[in-house]
Amino acid sequence: MSRLRISIAMSLDGFAAGPDQSVENPLGVGGMQLHEWALRLKAFREQHGQEGGEVNASTRIAEGHFANVGASIMGRKMFGGGSGAWDESWRGWWGDNPPYHHPVFVLTHHPREPLELEGGTTFHFVTDGIESALEQARAAAGGKDVVLNGGASAVQQYLAAGLVDELLVSIAPVFLGGGERLFDNLGGAPLALEQVEAVDAPGVAHIRYSVTTRSEGGAS
Amino acid sequence: MSRLRISIAMSLDGFAAGPDQSVENPLGVGGMQLHEWALRLKAFREQHGQEGGEVNASTRIAEGHFANVGASIMGRKMFGGGSGAWDESWRGWWGDNPPYHHPVFVLTHHPREPLELEGGTTFHFVTDGIESALEQARAAAGGKDVVLNGGASAVQQYLAAGLVDELLVSIAPVFLGGGERLFDNLGGAPLALEQVEAVDAPGVAHIRYSVTTRSEGGAS
Repeated sequence: MSRLRISIAMSLDGFAAGPDQSVENPLGVGGMQLHEWALRLKAFREQHGQEGGEVNASTRIAEGHFANVGASIMGRKMFGGGSGAWDESWRGWWGDNPPYHHPVFVLTHHPREPLELEGGTTFHFVTDGIESALEQARAAAGGKDVVLNGGASAVQQYLAAGLVDELLVSIAPVFLGGGERLFDNLGGAPLALEQVEAVDAPGVAHIRYSVTTRSEGGAS
Repeated sequence: MSRLRISIAMSLDGFAAGPDQSVENPLGVGGMQLHEWALRLKAFREQHGQEGGEVNASTRIAEGHFANVGASIMGRKMFGGGSGAWDESWRGWWGDNPPYHHPVFVLTHHPREPLELEGGTTFHFVTDGIESALEQARAAAGGKDVVLNGGASAVQQYLAAGLVDELLVSIAPVFLGGGERLFDNLGGAPLALEQVEAVDAPGVAHIRYSVTTRSEGGAS
């Protein structure tokens, strides 16, 4: 079965990005600290076409994140920032050879033709909502899983709608003190989390949950 | 060296208590779910004078929490709720034989004589601030550690003041959606967290950090 999986980094005080996010600093002040554990990993660097890096307890987590993924979804800010329509010449933040290597469905309000880049990544722009994006991603994934890449707003929308099957939170040892809260705006969705594992790794703790929707109480 | 240690439970969305806290429901709606992993433990039940319970991966964590503690500190709400002065007859929420078995220093604005209960617990009421409470607790601890029992407000004040040496956060697999945020109001204190360990246990993930104050930038 094709599952919808989320892997996302969070500060101990609950932020997925630091304060004062901007086009110049999309992760916000201090936000890069959430990803230091990943940036040093061989498994992560390979996916991004870089050499070197460590093998440690996070390696299995990163490899699992990239395995059996047929398509992914991301919010508009994660593709390319800004709040209006993108100029058609704007190819997002991910360079000529993005690290996805599969079809990526971008949630936006502004229609745009698909953007095919090197290495197997094609960005598709979806304007008719999160459920449509998931349907299109599932169709493109050919039975493999769909990964929700982020950001926080997209994570919240999919969680609130009860569409997420697995949630992997990588908690970085830092207080950001402000920014974009990862788990706001869930709207009292009747979500049940079951802890699958917690992994002690250098500079990060990974906690994996299976997510289901409780039938009792509240909307389904 | 006598350290100041915090052990506290938190929901995945960052709350140390649920919404609508009251004298009748001090943990707020759903807040008891943060402590289910502890309530089932033999090590926890013994400390509270109860029989039975499990031995599992949380046992070492709970035993470590209770070991080498000479005194503890708690906020006023954690002692007995309400917002005004307590009636001298009000002995708090902890019964005749509280689970502390050592001197406990309660942060409050209202002076009161010490309250000696069974089993070695004496509540001392401190009206001259968090640093005074820590000094008094350290003196009473006789070289052992001092534990900060909570709640969230006291945790925030001690963290912001750079007085905490160790922080153990037990993350329960639940979204509370509201309530008392554990790591608000740190005021940009220049705290450095170092992850010491992460422990995968039934229904909870424990992450232990050592806490230091960064010398660069901001007030010390």
